[in-house]
Amino acid sequence: MSLKLYFAPGACSFVPHSLLETTGAPFEPVMVKLHKGEQNEAAFKAINPRGQVPVLVDGDEVITQIPAILQYLDAKFPEQQFLPRETLARTRVLETLAWMNNTVHPTFTHVFMPQKYAGSPEAQAELKSFNARVYAGYLGEIEALAQRAAARGQSWLGGERLGPLDVYALTLLRWGGFAGIDPTGFQALWAHVQKVAQQPGVARAIERERLQLNLYKAA
Amino acid sequence: MSLKLYFAPGACSFVPHSLLETTGAPFEPVMVKLHKGEQNEAAFKAINPRGQVPVLVDGDEVITQIPAILQYLDAKFPEQQFLPRETLARTRVLETLAWMNNTVHPTFTHVFMPQKYAGSPEAQAELKSFNARVYAGYLGEIEALAQRAAARGQSWLGGERLGPLDVYALTLLRWGGFAGIDPTGFQALWAHVQKVAQQPGVARAIERERLQLNLYKAA
Repeated sequence: MSLKLYFAPGACSFVPHSLLETTGAPFEPVMVKLHKGEQNEAAFKAINPRGQVPVLVDGDEVITQIPAILQYLDAKFPEQQFLPRETLARTRVLETLAWMNNTVHPTFTHVFMPQKYAGSPEAQAELKSFNARVYAGYLGEIEALAQRAAARGQSWLGGERLGPLDVYALTLLRWGGFAGIDPTGFQALWAHVQKVAQQPGVARAIERERLQLNLYKAA
Repeated sequence: MSLKLYFAPGACSFVPHSLLETTGAPFEPVMVKLHKGEQNEAAFKAINPRGQVPVLVDGDEVITQIPAILQYLDAKFPEQQFLPRETLARTRVLETLAWMNNTVHPTFTHVFMPQKYAGSPEAQAELKSFNARVYAGYLGEIEALAQRAAARGQSWLGGERLGPLDVYALTLLRWGGFAGIDPTGFQALWAHVQKVAQQPGVARAIERERLQLNLYKAA
């Protein structure tokens, strides 16, 4: 078995990075420096033509896209129970995972890389401010998820095991700091994310990526 | 068993609509008229607070988000083999499904509903034109998928059975017409989509939604 994960510090690749570390299986972490544009260099585009992280390489197989990578890891490491086995519980996790991935995540991309969606400086500035407000609303929805989990006495967002929703929630709340949103304002979520950060596999990924959880700077 | 699907004609709900029709199982199709704003009325928001289709209701369970609905239908109707059973083949389908859902689909939303991302008329106009160009590039990537499937003698985009990728591809190519993109310019994809449209379940969904495949009007 030869497993390799291409990641960029603080990017959404943190989600599979943390879960891979959680398995305890050996893998080679390969850092892609986005600020140096390494994702657009020929060497990386030969691996993923779309120039994005995360990329999981398992032997000869190259796998992209977070939901696909996570379900592949779930199948490869069934003892971890990253996703519930029972259909309805699994569907509930996949539902929130899809929303984080197709709605919350691309909304942040408008704040972080508005040039992906518009060319003029004026439109880019508007995309940043408009979508930072929308993003804060979505973090409010994740706060409600954390509150409901706490109220039910459920340890993790997806059930009884640490899973993709917990680590994605950490990433999305952390990104809020870039968007001018104070993460400590979401009390249940902030408490949950700090607990997630202390899990051994997650903590190792945080250490390798040298992340600080709270990036918010008051204006 | 009481299955109900909330859909809007021509929306992405066409994907589960077609697959549900393909199963032959009885279900109640419920039309939500987006042009009348029914998705934002209290009656529908009581079902899905996010005001979006599709929504699948199975007994007391309400399921949203295309990837979750599709995997739920795959588990409920295993004989249809909507998704491959083998992990790697399944991962490949989930990878393309995730990309269609988190990248191609939201890019079209910038063309169709720019007000979701910006407030000013100027920024909205720029979002429409910029993202119509990006969208054409993505349709080019789906064309390449259709070409590769044809070159391999593979009947459907995900393998040997009609599945979510085929019906999502039909929806995305059809939306291209709204974005000023001629679908017949993507030869392999246009041929594939016409074949998809002729499958009995898909054809029944097309009939109920009263869809025409080619919406392109030359300027």
